[in-house]
Amino acid sequence: MHPDPYDPELFRRHGHQVVEALATYLDSALAGQVPVLPLRAPLELAEQYQGALPLDAADDAEAEVARCLAQVIGQSIHLHHPGYMGHQLPAVLPVAALADLISSLLNNSAAIHEMAQAGTQIERQVIRWLCAAVGWSQDSDGVLTSGGSLGNLTALLAARNHATQGAAWRQGLRAGPPLALLVSDQAHYTVARTAGVLGLGQDAIVTIPTDSCFRLDVSALERLYRQTAQQGKKVVAIVGSAGTTATGSFDPLHEMGEFCREKNAWFHIDGSHGASALFSEKYRGLTEGIELASSLVWDMHKMLFTPSLITAVLFPHRQYSYDAFSQEASYLFARRPEEADFDLALRTLECTKRTMGIKLWLALRVHGAKAIGELVTKTFDLAREFATLLKAEPDFELAAEAASNILCFRHVPLEIGNSESETKRLDEHQLEVRQRVVASGKHFLVHTVLRNKVYLRTTLMNPRTTVEDLKGLIRAIREADRSADLQVSTGMPT
Amino acid sequence: MHPDPYDPELFRRHGHQVVEALATYLDSALAGQVPVLPLRAPLELAEQYQGALPLDAADDAEAEVARCLAQVIGQSIHLHHPGYMGHQLPAVLPVAALADLISSLLNNSAAIHEMAQAGTQIERQVIRWLCAAVGWSQDSDGVLTSGGSLGNLTALLAARNHATQGAAWRQGLRAGPPLALLVSDQAHYTVARTAGVLGLGQDAIVTIPTDSCFRLDVSALERLYRQTAQQGKKVVAIVGSAGTTATGSFDPLHEMGEFCREKNAWFHIDGSHGASALFSEKYRGLTEGIELASSLVWDMHKMLFTPSLITAVLFPHRQYSYDAFSQEASYLFARRPEEADFDLALRTLECTKRTMGIKLWLALRVHGAKAIGELVTKTFDLAREFATLLKAEPDFELAAEAASNILCFRHVPLEIGNSESETKRLDEHQLEVRQRVVASGKHFLVHTVLRNKVYLRTTLMNPRTTVEDLKGLIRAIREADRSADLQVSTGMPT
Repeated sequence: MHPDPYDPELFRRHGHQVVEALATYLDSALAGQVPVLPLRAPLELAEQYQGALPLDAADDAEAEVARCLAQVIGQSIHLHHPGYMGHQLPAVLPVAALADLISSLLNNSAAIHEMAQAGTQIERQVIRWLCAAVGWSQDSDGVLTSGGSLGNLTALLAARNHATQGAAWRQGLRAGPPLALLVSDQAHYTVARTAGVLGLGQDAIVTIPTDSCFRLDVSALERLYRQTAQQGKKVVAIVGSAGTTATGSFDPLHEMGEFCREKNAWFHIDGSHGASALFSEKYRGLTEGIELASSLVWDMHKMLFTPSLITAVLFPHRQYSYDAFSQEASYLFARRPEEADFDLALRTLECTKRTMGIKLWLALRVHGAKAIGELVTKTFDLAREFATLLKAEPDFELAAEAASNILCFRHVPLEIGNSESETKRLDEHQLEVRQRVVASGKHFLVHTVLRNKVYLRTTLMNPRTTVEDLKGLIRAIREADRSADLQVSTGMPT
Repeated sequence: MHPDPYDPELFRRHGHQVVEALATYLDSALAGQVPVLPLRAPLELAEQYQGALPLDAADDAEAEVARCLAQVIGQSIHLHHPGYMGHQLPAVLPVAALADLISSLLNNSAAIHEMAQAGTQIERQVIRWLCAAVGWSQDSDGVLTSGGSLGNLTALLAARNHATQGAAWRQGLRAGPPLALLVSDQAHYTVARTAGVLGLGQDAIVTIPTDSCFRLDVSALERLYRQTAQQGKKVVAIVGSAGTTATGSFDPLHEMGEFCREKNAWFHIDGSHGASALFSEKYRGLTEGIELASSLVWDMHKMLFTPSLITAVLFPHRQYSYDAFSQEASYLFARRPEEADFDLALRTLECTKRTMGIKLWLALRVHGAKAIGELVTKTFDLAREFATLLKAEPDFELAAEAASNILCFRHVPLEIGNSESETKRLDEHQLEVRQRVVASGKHFLVHTVLRNKVYLRTTLMNPRTTVEDLKGLIRAIREADRSADLQVSTGMPT
């Protein structure tokens, strides 16, 4: 006889057990007492996951929970480790993780009001807070959705339907004029992907070059916009970035916004990473012009330090938020019109929709926006301090100054040098060094490709990282350089 | 001076506090000691959520957590309440909710292996378990994604790209032949929505009628397929349902699959709700033919009782799983080819991807597949018992026999009767009765529209619901009928 899976006493015991283990883990991760990434080869690790579907209940449930937890922790990357400087996943605020537990046990669906009264109300309050941070009026609105890719898809779908006045939705793209999407060469790959998904096709992408700081070149935008219009193509949107993925640069949003106004073009801003600068008193200025967006995507699970996934898709006008999916509203949803705003499934791809606003809401209620804004400031400061350190060293070169909390640089040992003929060797050197630093378990960084050159890339997503840790990274890179056993291995780009 | 948000001791205290409160809550919800839905009018409740962004930290963090938790619980719908018989959200297995806490604190991204070694390995193991349950060979594969809508989008995107051999992805839909999607009139609205999103347009939908049990009519499919082909349209996919949303019916999957084989057409099965019958020894037979799918969507957060969102998108051939998004793989991901399968972002829309497999994985490791399968059996049994009860009553009529755990029926009081002339009055009666039953706080059910008639709809998503609770619902409906103060109100359809 196996125990009742719903037994509240079982939940109580397992719950306290998990909290206790996670608290102990958090302590050791913050102190850097575990390898930041206990690196394993995928195929080798896979051998531990070959077991068949477990048919029977575990003999000892608590022991099984403990075993699973130890295994998962032992094979994870530790984002609270001060040496974590890698991809754009933050060291989460622990209270936001607890909000996820609440959300999961209640399992309310924030798609319609009656299935998540608190969940939908919280989402709408959070959306208002975010819109106010952008500087928008009461007419602004938006939704939360499952990640930045889906956020960009939702916003660009609204733009597509808006541009074609709904014809694309009803008759498909075969009927209308050729469409175009103007995107910087530094935009995240999901923007181009979205063109593929939405049926515009990758060929609809018009790539706009960027300047030496990886910011979109507005004069090139003007030229290419003209050219696109002359070819008889309808521009669905001009896409700007508030914090590009590779370098964290901010496009000249104000100039772009002015241009879009002039041309009556939809201005989409992918602020997945950088819109959170709005919470930082010191760095808010970086987002200047963000209020000119027709649609804005902003990940809470990046620089507002909540667990994945929670992305805001914001619009200056409520009606835009209905452009993506609302076509079928009339027959699906029978509520009184003034209550439709509370049935969020009208405006998101999700039909069952996790209550996700609670993660940010609880963190803000407990810690306050100032404290969270200070965490943003801290990581942005840190990138600037790191840039200063690197510039003082003869064997490092920066791709560009730090715009946010991302810094790309290369290690250029004297014995290789930086001549054109050594480009390939220098690229390989970055990959090798990166691989060896990561394997050491003391730091985690990634690499990226900028203008055909490989760079090391740090994203400072853990406010507990210090300047000392960054000095340690510089030492670790030099040690890796001196290390004898070279092994070519590539790892993952961003 | 506010406390350090990352302090492990703070997490420990808050964690134990939240677990304790949730365990107490779970106990009372299971015992039905709270109203299943403490119904509030959206606009009235919104008044509690008008506060501005909290700038400062709470004076007393624990008190603030307690306040927030009490507010959220007090305004939620309680899926563990035995009177919960509404939308397709389950009473979650508590241990699966704890898995979400683990996932959230670690915040590993199961998009690439190094960012979630355990997370990606767990996902691949879970996918293998699910494919094996379908009866597929080692060549099968798939991914987990954020919900059934996104799952259907992913599968149909693969079908679209497959049908156009990648041309749709590159050149857009404007270039190719007209496309069509053959879908039953009972398919979930997200399938038609997907046609809008993917650029096929709603007009590309060819609706196939269903029989008296709401199962797709195969002879109509054959006829309409022929007609579509004669019109020069290319069929992207034929879509079947394993458990339709409204009535839980299973399409004749075997016949449909045979037909698709014959025509070399992509056979997509939306098994969001019903594919979990594969876990039930007693009801597995309902899914006969599911193994003929070219793509299959299956929500764990419905009938496998995990929290939202975790949807499997499965394919009989691994290569199909790369058809949706893989076009850009070459330049984005630099791993060795044999390791690409572990970088799941190649095959999902998500780029940051929550570690979600752990919810099902931990539940299976602790409780075993048999126990979870028995929960499926229990809810399917319950719907059959409820059907038997209703058929014995003179004032109730069924829309159809119970196919899974969903039952649609109407209350037909003698004073209204069931004549054609009373159709509208009878429709309104269902809505009124539903509203009053829900407002009582003892039961929660929904309504749906079938062939232009309004039905009451119960989805038995809580294995703790008993036959006594269903008898109670019958009594409650009759009481609501007798209740004097009629108020017309519509509520939400499914």
